[in-house]
This record gives sequence, C-alpha cells and structure tokens, in this order.
Amino acid sequence: MLRRSFGFGLVAASVAVASRATLAQNDPLPSWNDGAAKRAILDFVARTTTAGGREFVAVPERIATFDNDGTLWIEQPIYVQVAFAIDRVRAQAAQHPEWKDQEPFKFVLTDDMAGLAAMGEKGMVQIIAATHSGMTVTDFERTVLDWLATARHPRFKRPYTELVYQPMLELMSLLRAKEFKTFIVSGGGIDFMRPWTGRIYGIPPEQVVGSSGVVTYDFNGGKPVLLKQPKVDFVDDGPGKPVGIYRFIGRRPVLAFGNSDGDQQMLEYTAGGEGARFMGLVHHTDAVREYAYDRDSRVGRLDKAWDEAVQRGWTVVDMKNDWKVIFPFEK
Amino acid sequence: MLRRSFGFGLVAASVAVASRATLAQNDPLPSWNDGAAKRAILDFVARTTTAGGREFVAVPERIATFDNDGTLWIEQPIYVQVAFAIDRVRAQAAQHPEWKDQEPFKFVLTDDMAGLAAMGEKGMVQIIAATHSGMTVTDFERTVLDWLATARHPRFKRPYTELVYQPMLELMSLLRAKEFKTFIVSGGGIDFMRPWTGRIYGIPPEQVVGSSGVVTYDFNGGKPVLLKQPKVDFVDDGPGKPVGIYRFIGRRPVLAFGNSDGDQQMLEYTAGGEGARFMGLVHHTDAVREYAYDRDSRVGRLDKAWDEAVQRGWTVVDMKNDWKVIFPFEK
Repeated sequence: MLRRSFGFGLVAASVAVASRATLAQNDPLPSWNDGAAKRAILDFVARTTTAGGREFVAVPERIATFDNDGTLWIEQPIYVQVAFAIDRVRAQAAQHPEWKDQEPFKFVLTDDMAGLAAMGEKGMVQIIAATHSGMTVTDFERTVLDWLATARHPRFKRPYTELVYQPMLELMSLLRAKEFKTFIVSGGGIDFMRPWTGRIYGIPPEQVVGSSGVVTYDFNGGKPVLLKQPKVDFVDDGPGKPVGIYRFIGRRPVLAFGNSDGDQQMLEYTAGGEGARFMGLVHHTDAVREYAYDRDSRVGRLDKAWDEAVQRGWTVVDMKNDWKVIFPFEK
Repeated sequence: MLRRSFGFGLVAASVAVASRATLAQNDPLPSWNDGAAKRAILDFVARTTTAGGREFVAVPERIATFDNDGTLWIEQPIYVQVAFAIDRVRAQAAQHPEWKDQEPFKFVLTDDMAGLAAMGEKGMVQIIAATHSGMTVTDFERTVLDWLATARHPRFKRPYTELVYQPMLELMSLLRAKEFKTFIVSGGGIDFMRPWTGRIYGIPPEQVVGSSGVVTYDFNGGKPVLLKQPKVDFVDDGPGKPVGIYRFIGRRPVLAFGNSDGDQQMLEYTAGGEGARFMGLVHHTDAVREYAYDRDSRVGRLDKAWDEAVQRGWTVVDMKNDWKVIFPFEK
C-alpha cells in the first residue's frame, strides 16, 4: 500500500509538473505577469479570433498598430533618433565648418546639451533636417545600419536594438500567430525605422508608418535614385497618427498600443470603430529596470492620454508590475 | 488485332486529350496567347522563384507593382475617376447654385465636354477637388461604391468593375501563388480605389498606393472622423511613382507593369535594381475588342515609355495579339 500510494504519488506529481511545463510552454505571453493587462489581451484575442463568436473579426480586418518609441523600444534619456542625429552632426562637422558658429549645431559640437534643450523642438527639427537629407535613400539606410551597429545606450551600454521590450515582442508574435497584421505607427522617421524593423520586430518595411521628409526622384543619367530633401513631408504624431493610418493602411485598427500623449488620437480613432477594440498604453513605472516617467517628462509625456485611458477603461500596462522581463537579454 | 489496335488508339487519344486538358488546366495564364510576352512572364517567374537558382528572389523581396488605369482596367474614353467626378458635379449641382456660372462646373452642367476639355488638367483638378472633399472618408467611400454599383461604361454598357483585364487578373493570381505581394501604384486617387480593389483584384487597401488629397482628423465631440480637404497632398504619377513606392512600400519592385508615360519612372526605378527584374507595358492595340491608342492619346499616352521599352528590351504586351480574352465576361 505504501509502495503503491508512493507510486501513485510520483505519477501524480510528474503529471502536475508536466502540465505546469506545458502550460508555461503554451503561454504565448511568458514575460507578462498574470494580471489585468495580460488577461485583457488574451481575452481580446480569444474573442476576436474565435470563429462563430459574436465579436469575431475577419482576418483581413485584423489590423494592429504599435507606436515605436517607448512602446516597442527605449526612448529615454532621449529618443534614439535624436541620439543618431547628434552623432551625425559630430560626424559631419568637418564638412560643415559653418556649424561651429550656428545654433543648434554649435551646442552639439560643444556638448552644450542644455543649450540644445533650451531651443526645444525647433533645434531638433533643424538637426534632423540637416542630418537626414542631402543623400540618396540607400546611403541614408546604410548610415542608419552602421550607426546602430556601433552606437551604445548611455546607461545600458548595449546596442539600441537590444533595448526592445520582450513582452511587446511576445504580444506581436501572438497577434501574428492569430493572423493579425502588425504595423508600426510612429512619430519617428519612417526611413530611420524601416532598415531594421524586419529583423528586430518581424515587421517588414511596407508595414511601417512614420514621419517623413520629402523625397525626390532623379534619373541621374540612367541610374535612378531617390534623394532625401531637407523638408518635412508628413508628421505622424498626435492627430497625424489616424491620418497616417488611413493614408498608409486604409483600415481602422482593431488593436492599438502606445505609451504617450502622441498616441492619444490613434487610440481614440481605434476606439471609434464598431465591434471589439483594444486600446493599450505602456506606463513606464520601473526606474530600476528601465525608467519611470509620465506627466512631467519631456520625452514620451503621458498625461492626457492617461486620463482618457482611465476614464474610458483602456488597458494601462504597469511596466513594473505587469512585466516579468523587460529586455530580451534578461531572459 | 484490329480491335486491339483500335483499343490502343482510343487509349492513346484519351491520354492525349487528358494531357491537353491538364496542360490547359495547369496553364496559369490561359487568357494569354502563346507568344513572347507570355513566355517572358513565365520565364521570369520561374527564374525568380526556383530555390537555388542564380536569380532566386527571397519571398519578402517579391514585390510586384501595377498601374491601374489602362493596365488593370479600362481608361477610355475618359478615366473612370473623371466620369465619377463629372457625375458627382451633376448630383451635387442643386447644393451649389453658383456652379452654373463657374468654370469648369458650368461646362459639366451644360454637357459642354469640349469646353471642359479645353481647360485641360486645370479643370479636372478643380472638379476632382470639389467632388472629393468636404465629407468624411467613410461617406466618400460609400459614395464611390454607390456610384460603381449603378454607373455604366458608355460603350460597353457594363459596370466599370467588369471592365478589368482578365489576363492581368491571371498574372496577379500567378504572382500571388508564387508568393509575390501585389501592389497597385496608380496616378488615380487612393481613396477612389481602395473601397473595391480587394473584391475585384484581390488587392487589400494597405497594398494600394495612389494620389491623395489632404485628410484631417477631428475628434468631433467623441466621435473621431477623418475629413477630406480640397487640397492635393501627393501626386503618384510619373516621377511621383518611385517616390510613392519608396514611401508606402519601402522596397524596390522586382516586377512592374504599366501602360503609359506616367509609368515610365516606375519602370526605370524597377529596372535600376540588382538581379532579375521584369518591366512590362500594356499597349492598347485592339480597337475592336477595347481601344487602340498610344502616342497621340490624351488619356494614357504611350510615347516616351514605349521608346524606352523598345530600347531597353522591356516587355510590351500587344493587347490584340497577346490577349485571347480581354474582359472576364468574354470567357
């Protein structure tokens, strides 16, 4: 009896272990703690993809849009693209002797980041225009990839492309497994993202929407090229996001994820459709593992969108409590 | 012996019939006559999709772009979108009493098509701006679908969506079966095409690139809407086509098909890439079954692009000789 019951006990125990292992293996969001956010996501996916269900969404309509900076990858202490632009000003300074007397360039060249910050948006737009134009789109792409290969985040000392959020990678994989089409809809430059989003996020260039500068075509004596001009074409931020979604995708998302006030209109537009909708915000609450910031942040301010999320019952992800792992290298 | 040989004969004959039937069944381009164009297409598809081949193209790079007017559907005697705009002027005339004294509207309202034509591009731009703005994108979409359901082509007396080219439908199906992603890249309005390209061509809205007007976002007291403004945003024609391809798709096509000088730069840009490329032009040569026009046509002029195609060895499809069937209803 003893032996027998012991035997049974072993079998039962190993079944329990196996079933826990299977459960973990089958969990499509292993880096998410079990909480309201994870449950809301899994519930939404189940409701919209169960054939015959009241909230079933046909495959072609399964459009999911994600902001990039602060939603899929790190945006502190400055936007990655701004770090890139600053490095480009330094790299190109020799060809631009006039920059040492010109704002905002002289601030960069003398490491006067306070002076640069004091110029606000205007300084950044000038630096981006100067460093993101005057070359072919192919040369720009190469510059972006070269920079990403060597640049390191000042705090984490890692390539920026390693500072992407593991839980969001899992969410995008889950959605794609359920035949959602995942898009990036970012205020960042479309040409800055497309060279690497396929490899890092599994999102091909044709599913990236972003801000852009004017590009012109030149036949160039039989060798056609596209040239980047120092002129803003489209700002895919705030009210520009629903416009960008309409213009590039032509369908209203059923799921949208952002992290800042620049995503508010994308979430409103998503919420405005009929049937099941999912609106999510990443709230950066983890100063130890990443950063903690919201209403008073210069970068990625989350204020009005947060209020609206609370009021309308959108999902607010608490990074500290909802995410078991933040970056892939922690696994 | 006689009986036996007769029996063998029957078997051989039925095998031959079966094999011809199988051949026809397996022909992915049954509406194309066996000729240089068809062979060039089949050869290109085989070379680029055979694993291990020297000219193999990885699936994500299999981007194929198609002009719409005159390449996928009829564009004579006037562009379909122009017929739509003219009908909209008539339909909205009661709400615009001022139109009866204003050019170009008064030409439409008095059926003075010569007067309208004399205004050239300018008149058309004004008519399109007036009839394609001042409403939500949702209302515009409904208007387009309602119009397509009732409007008839003046010569063929059929809905415009039936006047699409069967051989091109077959080509797009073949490409998709071979894991190419098919896009429309048209000078026509993106908002005019997207409501129906999925059903008619199998091309979803997010794979349609076209000309566009400015769209603005309005929260509208909690009911978010996108409003069409009477201002041109982007002209996806001529040198605008490679720009549109870069902006919307972010990859260079490996195959592109057009029919007019407005497609020349798209074909040049396609040809400018490395590896196997296919550049095709539909030449309208069949006045009996469709229309015959090229160098002197106001609509869909084919002049410089034709010269370049001949010079560079691009494929020029001779509609009369290369196409067994033109429209699906002929089958």
